[in-house]
Amino acid sequence: MHIAKVIGTVVATRKIEQLKGAKLLILQPLTPEGEPKGSPVVALDTVRVGPGDIVFFVRGREAAHTVADKFNPADAAVMGIVDRVDL
Amino acid sequence: MHIAKVIGTVVATRKIEQLKGAKLLILQPLTPEGEPKGSPVVALDTVRVGPGDIVFFVRGREAAHTVADKFNPADAAVMGIVDRVDL
Amino acid sequence: MHIAKVIGTVVATRKIEQLKGAKLLILQPLTPEGEPKGSPVVALDTVRVGPGDIVFFVRGREAAHTVADKFNPADAAVMGIVDRVDL
Amino acid sequence: MHIAKVIGTVVATRKIEQLKGAKLLILQPLTPEGEPKGSPVVALDTVRVGPGDIVFFVRGREAAHTVADKFNPADAAVMGIVDRVDL
Amino acid sequence: MHIAKVIGTVVATRKIEQLKGAKLLILQPLTPEGEPKGSPVVALDTVRVGPGDIVFFVRGREAAHTVADKFNPADAAVMGIVDRVDL
Repeated sequence: MHIAKVIGTVVATRKIEQLKGAKLLILQPLTPEGEPKGSPVVALDTVRVGPGDIVFFVRGREAAHTVADKFNPADAAVMGIVDRVDL
Repeated sequence: MHIAKVIGTVVATRKIEQLKGAKLLILQPLTPEGEPKGSPVVALDTVRVGPGDIVFFVRGREAAHTVADKFNPADAAVMGIVDRVDL
Repeated sequence: MHIAKVIGTVVATRKIEQLKGAKLLILQPLTPEGEPKGSPVVALDTVRVGPGDIVFFVRGREAAHTVADKFNPADAAVMGIVDRVDL
Repeated sequence: MHIAKVIGTVVATRKIEQLKGAKLLILQPLTPEGEPKGSPVVALDTVRVGPGDIVFFVRGREAAHTVADKFNPADAAVMGIVDRVDL
Repeated sequence: MHIAKVIGTVVATRKIEQLKGAKLLILQPLTPEGEPKGSPVVALDTVRVGPGDIVFFVRGREAAHTVADKFNPADAAVMGIVDRVDL
């Protein structure tokens, strides 16, 4: 899993059936110290977060297990909000 | 998921049975700001897009869930068309 | 699988149901010689390790198989503690 | 999926049971323009190609779906021969 | 799949139940020409190899299919011994 900051949203009217109604976020992955790391990704929202929130998310098939329809084809999804990182 | 621009198509007459009839696109991944990022990939079309369209797509096994036969072996597929990115 | 050092923990009160009660570690991947390699990841603890321990962990869907509920959505998990590396 | 050129073969007498009889190719991934990109990979042949052929292939679990025994453990396989790339 | 040289072993007394008895190898990935490429990985032994052997291995979920218990959580495993590479 990875730590990231929510930096935006994607609006997509025409999309595959399984993603109808899903909220799509743009996440900037961060290091544990809070520095940006690598490229932003598009991820499903699952815990109702918003721009500026620090979250942790999964990549890959695991993402589909966070939502009701396990056959949805998402490949990245937010798992929770990070309260604190202890190093 | 990733944002990309459709930059071309692949013509392949001889291919495995499960991909017969499938349309293969060449996608150039983009940053949220619209800059090219990384190498182009070959992806299945699922929402009838064309060259120049800005789309979002998945990589990996998730791609197979976008089409009728869930045992098809694609590893990248277009999920929808991007109307707008809010940062 | 990869060798890593436990360098911290993540506190997350609000998270998806399947991760309730799970302990989240920050791991710094290492080379076989013990040098840091690449970026830290957030992983599930499965064998009760603590900061400073040298462990080996999996990435990806395999991680879910280390815990009781195989449908949990983790994508990285500690597999065991490294006693010794012979090169 | 990725475009690649077949640049060699691997001979392996002693291997796991599920790969007995399989033909193993060495592929050099290419850009859409035909330039080498990244490191060669070892992939299953599924459409009877040979050295010099331009093909497209999948990485990951999808590869297993190209052959009869879906439990075989390959992680890369050729999907078809590229006739033409339109950019 | 990837070509690699066996360069060491990992000793881990305390590990998850499913890996009890498994032999863990350290592999240095190689190019087809035999040059080291990228970082070493920790992989399951499945064909009884030893230090210095040239092998080919898979990464990811495929690795689990090489051993009896398909729910084991390994993410890399040796598939066979390379006799010869023809380029």
